[in-house]
Amino acid sequence: MSINRLTQQIQFIIEIDRLKLILRQTLLTDGSRRENSAEHSWHLAIMAMSLAEYAPLGVDISQAMKMLLIHDLVEIDAGDTFCYDVQGNENKAHREAQAALRLFGLLPADQGQEFHQLWHEFEAGKTPTAKFAAALDRIQPLLHNQQTQGGTWRIHGIRRDQVMKRVAPVETGAPELWPFVLQLIDDSVAAGYLHEAPDINTQD
Amino acid sequence: MSINRLTQQIQFIIEIDRLKLILRQTLLTDGSRRENSAEHSWHLAIMAMSLAEYAPLGVDISQAMKMLLIHDLVEIDAGDTFCYDVQGNENKAHREAQAALRLFGLLPADQGQEFHQLWHEFEAGKTPTAKFAAALDRIQPLLHNQQTQGGTWRIHGIRRDQVMKRVAPVETGAPELWPFVLQLIDDSVAAGYLHEAPDINTQD
Repeated sequence: MSINRLTQQIQFIIEIDRLKLILRQTLLTDGSRRENSAEHSWHLAIMAMSLAEYAPLGVDISQAMKMLLIHDLVEIDAGDTFCYDVQGNENKAHREAQAALRLFGLLPADQGQEFHQLWHEFEAGKTPTAKFAAALDRIQPLLHNQQTQGGTWRIHGIRRDQVMKRVAPVETGAPELWPFVLQLIDDSVAAGYLHEAPDINTQD
Repeated sequence: MSINRLTQQIQFIIEIDRLKLILRQTLLTDGSRRENSAEHSWHLAIMAMSLAEYAPLGVDISQAMKMLLIHDLVEIDAGDTFCYDVQGNENKAHREAQAALRLFGLLPADQGQEFHQLWHEFEAGKTPTAKFAAALDRIQPLLHNQQTQGGTWRIHGIRRDQVMKRVAPVETGAPELWPFVLQLIDDSVAAGYLHEAPDINTQD
């Protein structure tokens, strides 16, 4: 064991504690406060364990869990960008790439590269594992918004068409869960938790 | 896919959101607030990833991560019991066993049994994987207490002998990390973050 190597790993472990201070828009299911990105990542990793049987061929569940645990670390430097914030999302990729360099750079080089690669695989969203992980990341806020009678959707006046665009990756990343997602959205519109998309015919 | 099966899994996923409301005694490393058990579990799972190379022979890191993700779920019903609370720890095992039955019982039977078994393996602390997971669970609060100039130790007047007893499982669960733990404790005493054990010779 190299003391220096362990020192770097401990520094990384201490540094990532700051993810617990990054607040997302999503509310906890009891509506009492906003969720932070660390507990969100925990929730997603357990979702991967619990919903593993719906993962398409080629998904490595252990890798998906690791990916989900670290996927939001870059927010420590870059902050959480609300998914419906068009302007904030314009330079998001650049800010997050810089954050990844710094944070994974705290680790010993070989390990930092491995973590960085895993994060990059998630961001690129091309492999079955990354697609499945992304699908879970889209499903979790739906559950929270439904449990809080619309939660973030109501606060920000989000419409069905915006949510449909946001959750689209579920259809390919976790096709077995897609009917559940469509039903949840239908139910949310019916319950008044989510606005129907504007009818184009009434716009003129 | 059975709709009923998925419904049970989603109910479990929604229910465990409550772990985010369970506060531990430990402070975040910036000292701003107490840590909750969900974000604590996230931190431990990443520690398992980051410190995997120090795991003794026979440790399954993926299993250790899963174990750490679910190990505190029982606190949703049983609450978090402070490790130095003698009275609270007397009936802890019974309260947590009841909680495990209810929570893992929300899942489809086969899956609930699998999660329950994993939790039980952690609690029993007999396998190399459970011992390694327990070691990480003991190391993480040390880091937080050191980062917060004594944190919980100072608040509750905890002494070195109490901490030594608490961290003892690291010596067998993660022997390669034991020198680091001893050094951290020595440093904490030297810095005044942790009281030295009372000298028996001065007691009479």
